[in-house]
Amino acid sequence: MNYKIMDNDDFVFLKSIVKEENIILRDDIEEDFSHDELQTVYAYPEVHIYPTDKKQIQEIIKYANKYKIPVTTRGSGTGLVGACVPIKGGILLDLSKMNQFIELDKINMTLRLEPGVLVMDIYEYVEKEGLFYAPDPGEKSATIGGNIATNAGGMRAVKYGVTRDWIRGLEVVLANGELVKFGGKVVKNSSGYDLKDLIIGSEGSLGIVVEATLKLIPLPRMTVSLLIPFENKEKAIAAVPEVITHHTLPTAVEFLENDALKFSESYLGKKIPNADYPAYLLISYDGSTQDEIDYNVDIISKLCVDDLGAIDVYLVDTEERKQSVWSARGAFLEAIKASTTMIDECDVVLPRSQITQYLDFTRNLSEELDIRIPYFGHAGDGNLHIYFCKDNLSDIEWEEKLKIGFDKLYTKAFEFSGMVSGEHGIGYAKKEYLRKQLGEKQIQLMKGIKAVFDPNNILNPEKVI
Amino acid sequence: MNYKIMDNDDFVFLKSIVKEENIILRDDIEEDFSHDELQTVYAYPEVHIYPTDKKQIQEIIKYANKYKIPVTTRGSGTGLVGACVPIKGGILLDLSKMNQFIELDKINMTLRLEPGVLVMDIYEYVEKEGLFYAPDPGEKSATIGGNIATNAGGMRAVKYGVTRDWIRGLEVVLANGELVKFGGKVVKNSSGYDLKDLIIGSEGSLGIVVEATLKLIPLPRMTVSLLIPFENKEKAIAAVPEVITHHTLPTAVEFLENDALKFSESYLGKKIPNADYPAYLLISYDGSTQDEIDYNVDIISKLCVDDLGAIDVYLVDTEERKQSVWSARGAFLEAIKASTTMIDECDVVLPRSQITQYLDFTRNLSEELDIRIPYFGHAGDGNLHIYFCKDNLSDIEWEEKLKIGFDKLYTKAFEFSGMVSGEHGIGYAKKEYLRKQLGEKQIQLMKGIKAVFDPNNILNPEKVI
Repeated sequence: MNYKIMDNDDFVFLKSIVKEENIILRDDIEEDFSHDELQTVYAYPEVHIYPTDKKQIQEIIKYANKYKIPVTTRGSGTGLVGACVPIKGGILLDLSKMNQFIELDKINMTLRLEPGVLVMDIYEYVEKEGLFYAPDPGEKSATIGGNIATNAGGMRAVKYGVTRDWIRGLEVVLANGELVKFGGKVVKNSSGYDLKDLIIGSEGSLGIVVEATLKLIPLPRMTVSLLIPFENKEKAIAAVPEVITHHTLPTAVEFLENDALKFSESYLGKKIPNADYPAYLLISYDGSTQDEIDYNVDIISKLCVDDLGAIDVYLVDTEERKQSVWSARGAFLEAIKASTTMIDECDVVLPRSQITQYLDFTRNLSEELDIRIPYFGHAGDGNLHIYFCKDNLSDIEWEEKLKIGFDKLYTKAFEFSGMVSGEHGIGYAKKEYLRKQLGEKQIQLMKGIKAVFDPNNILNPEKVI
Repeated sequence: MNYKIMDNDDFVFLKSIVKEENIILRDDIEEDFSHDELQTVYAYPEVHIYPTDKKQIQEIIKYANKYKIPVTTRGSGTGLVGACVPIKGGILLDLSKMNQFIELDKINMTLRLEPGVLVMDIYEYVEKEGLFYAPDPGEKSATIGGNIATNAGGMRAVKYGVTRDWIRGLEVVLANGELVKFGGKVVKNSSGYDLKDLIIGSEGSLGIVVEATLKLIPLPRMTVSLLIPFENKEKAIAAVPEVITHHTLPTAVEFLENDALKFSESYLGKKIPNADYPAYLLISYDGSTQDEIDYNVDIISKLCVDDLGAIDVYLVDTEERKQSVWSARGAFLEAIKASTTMIDECDVVLPRSQITQYLDFTRNLSEELDIRIPYFGHAGDGNLHIYFCKDNLSDIEWEEKLKIGFDKLYTKAFEFSGMVSGEHGIGYAKKEYLRKQLGEKQIQLMKGIKAVFDPNNILNPEKVI
């Protein structure tokens, strides 16, 4: 596919669509916009545009489609697989200025909003009304549009599912510039093929999400977390399936290692209480009565201490302690990044029953390759975040070890019926592994769908498939 | 599209695939297999086949694709929109003998099973292990394959969502006979386009589901229902949004009218306790402690009696009372069918806030057309089941009133941002209204997807789009 190299005519047209301060040409584009959070792939767009409404996006896309100019959509740029990097140049469509709440409907318990709203702002906006948006990805400064693009998960997925489960409706600009609505405020829908869920997780390659309608539920009245130390990581990890199957339905089950906590302490510059044990599970419950919370806490505390070898159970119940422990957990990625020269990430998801064995494999791999591989993860989901750290390796050694290590990690994950990505997506960086996992026929189906939605391949080309 | 008229060669081939007792030729096919539950459309297949494993299905589909023979998949035949009726003849692929449980995985809390397992058998199978499969469609003798085909909903969708939300993985035979796996036992997945959700709700037109992996959760320890009488249906319906927004997260919120209850009493041949009021809400809660249940029951009882004009609140807490009330609710469709000569159904779903106004409109329409239109519904979801009853109308009058009435009902639903189908699907009967609702562009996208999956249009032709 040959794309048009943008020229002055194109810029003149685009300047007629958006205000002058919302369009930046090639030479003035900041370095920040040539990569994402993980910085494993770099490319500059020819123009960086901030549209401020749907109509502008429709006109821009119609034009791009007519002249075959690639369009890469970007939110906060907090992705980890290069999905928002404009590999083929063209237009970087930055939706971060489309960040307005449109309608909080308390009767239907839905929130309509623009794609550039940050997830942390959603929590604040709905919780003061006694409502709850459950998806809780680690990166709170991501946009809801970015969360939809990658079907973001997060800590509370154990009980509440992922972004997909909380999207009632989408407005989408298609590759021909047409605006369509998939779903709406309705709770159920069996009306034709499920185009809404096809857009969710498609990383900007099938259409541009310009408005979303989120599902909300009543805010749980009470939450509590338990920080449960173990004498080694093997015991902590082995406890996870037991905890999950013990019929208490926790909100979150996170696995923490002392290393990661120490990185966080140093990164955040503050001490985390009870942080001196080798490994932990961090387990949360929510509910409507104290009795319900106590019931679950009692069962799990007894189980962990009596049967699973936990050293103790610390109740994390004050706001201050919650803040301290969860901010440490939230800072893991930043802290690991700050501990080394460069990182790359593997975001596999496995059947929960396989995580103990898989992490054994990962630790052996770290020794075998002589490379540092810290990890943490949504243990309750079987979703692990495994980081290769460059430290003092030369570029050549790094590339070599990364290639061998990733090949082995993904191959082992597929043996265990795992998937390439639990929540971070495929983007540019993981395409090869997606193909290995799914096989030719599924990739062909996806390519067929891509061609139906975007015959000129202008929407985020070179991504996902 | 011209399909092949099946001949003796085809039958000889098919007989080499399945056992003799599992293949029935045209002249011997029972009338039951020429229609579905609602009997609004009739057609006989040329051959009725019961495959007993995936391999057989692969061979049959590969053959059908090569010779352009249409294939219509059928489960229990309990659908209401003609989806399982072989409009173009060809092969009726009856999966009701593929009804084995394959693997209950307690650690990953998943259940693998064949598509012909009945949903009522799933409940029995998992609940004795302390596990819970939440989707609860009215028709318990439907197959799980049928539930997946139409993305069935049910009573408990208010809290637990619909079939889609409980499917972790599918094995699907594609139109070329290839067997593919979408998803698996994993809890999260952001690995490429969401083909699994595209298959769910596609009514056998994109692929044949030959195995499913269901999500399970711990069985709630306690459940209670409240039967809440009101002096008229307007007050009962108007109470629904208040109940939903009162922050108690009920499992089910059903609206019942006295008429429907009386039909059920007469159909079931037994008295339902406290069934003499004009209208009711039937509300359920589940939870892990008595305290939690009491908390919710107290809030809602006070709200209904003090603020929403309920006459009383009856606790439905013994097994006998639960059985009696819920079996009455479950028998509504059968009871309405038994009360008249012929029915047709509208399964719209609306934003919850619109149901009061919509049902006013429906009652006016009933008067205006002088036709009986009983209804009931998953009020908590905004999903209504509205039945036109033929009673003593002539065929011509019936067709006329049905056409005018349905046109008005769907047009009004779309005005209210509703959808054609909340849970029964589109099938053959609702295609025209789907097109009206979605518009040409979305239908085009769906046709494009259909062509990608099934280029020869052999899978359930003339359905959905």
